[in-house]
Amino acid sequence: MSKPILLYTFPTPNGVKVSTFLEELKTYVVESINIMKNTQKEPWFIKLNPNGRIPVIVDRARDNFPVFETAAILLYLQQHYDPDNKFGWDPKASPNEYSEALQWIFFAHGGVGPMQGQLNHFNKFAPEDIPYAKKRYLDETKRLYGVLEIRLSQDRDWLVGSGRGKYSIADINAAGWVRIHAFSGIETLDEWPHLKKWLEAIHARPGFSAGTDVGRT
Amino acid sequence: MSKPILLYTFPTPNGVKVSTFLEELKTYVVESINIMKNTQKEPWFIKLNPNGRIPVIVDRARDNFPVFETAAILLYLQQHYDPDNKFGWDPKASPNEYSEALQWIFFAHGGVGPMQGQLNHFNKFAPEDIPYAKKRYLDETKRLYGVLEIRLSQDRDWLVGSGRGKYSIADINAAGWVRIHAFSGIETLDEWPHLKKWLEAIHARPGFSAGTDVGRT
Repeated sequence: MSKPILLYTFPTPNGVKVSTFLEELKTYVVESINIMKNTQKEPWFIKLNPNGRIPVIVDRARDNFPVFETAAILLYLQQHYDPDNKFGWDPKASPNEYSEALQWIFFAHGGVGPMQGQLNHFNKFAPEDIPYAKKRYLDETKRLYGVLEIRLSQDRDWLVGSGRGKYSIADINAAGWVRIHAFSGIETLDEWPHLKKWLEAIHARPGFSAGTDVGRT
Repeated sequence: MSKPILLYTFPTPNGVKVSTFLEELKTYVVESINIMKNTQKEPWFIKLNPNGRIPVIVDRARDNFPVFETAAILLYLQQHYDPDNKFGWDPKASPNEYSEALQWIFFAHGGVGPMQGQLNHFNKFAPEDIPYAKKRYLDETKRLYGVLEIRLSQDRDWLVGSGRGKYSIADINAAGWVRIHAFSGIETLDEWPHLKKWLEAIHARPGFSAGTDVGRT
């Protein structure tokens, strides 16, 4: 099967992480999930992901195995559909790089995503104006960008890999949120020059640009 | 080296995840980090973890390789120090179980942890009383407990594994936060009977009990 992966998604920050990676791998078809109509809360979707969130993939070449949680999807796709490890590392052959990739993926997954998500909530969606919460999540998102800046300022272009690193699922995973910094009220990345350069290099990748709007109807 | 792992920690919900696993593996020594004195923000610690957070491990048997991010530490320890895969799955030999473990680990790492952490902040530490935020994070934490309940009600005792599953790093990773539900203002788990039974079974493990206070000075 040339396109084994069925991707259920919508171009949210988490959706974009998976679609930009799949645009590199070219192994997928997409079904848009209308999150404004809460399609992701319907019983058939809850069977795929009890958390009721996009994105989810179903691997039609592996007995319709379903995978939820953005970062788990990236790691699954890298293991099964990137045989030359262009975008990641083999856990046995390269255990240290594999662990470093996990470290930066968990950092973004438990830090940047949830905190920038709360920032967006209090800036854009909350029915009350709560300055304390806006400041809390703005400060924390900026602090987390500063952690990425520390890493990227250590003579490297990418978050993980020997030498200057290589573009991998660790970068794809972090970029999904960093790319919408302006939407989150952080107008420029000038405070974090290495992070700014990193994001520009990611945007210049054709696969990344092609993946940022997948799933919009 | 019989105790290769040097663990820097304090018994926070994230610290406990690692110390309860290391109590099963018995391969570690501990150095307490005084988070009230912000020891984890000192330059020597930032070199180990640029995010300035505990827990961190250093593997003295593997050229002092450092690992930060709780869940990345659990996966590293399982790969290198659980050769019979008692607490996890080999990515090559058991790719589906390995992926399911990652899915539930990411679910807890990006959901339960950050949301229950915000609940604690607004309940206990914020200088302002903000009912909207308290309700937001209480509701979300309860919803996430409900997702764990869906999984555990599917004829299984543990989050991952064939049949009724096996106690693994996926359970350890989720338990670190769920166990402090009362501190977070969720007095009982009666709404989620399978989750309640799961937590009781975890508490009954000697390794878990032994690990919950590691790093306190």
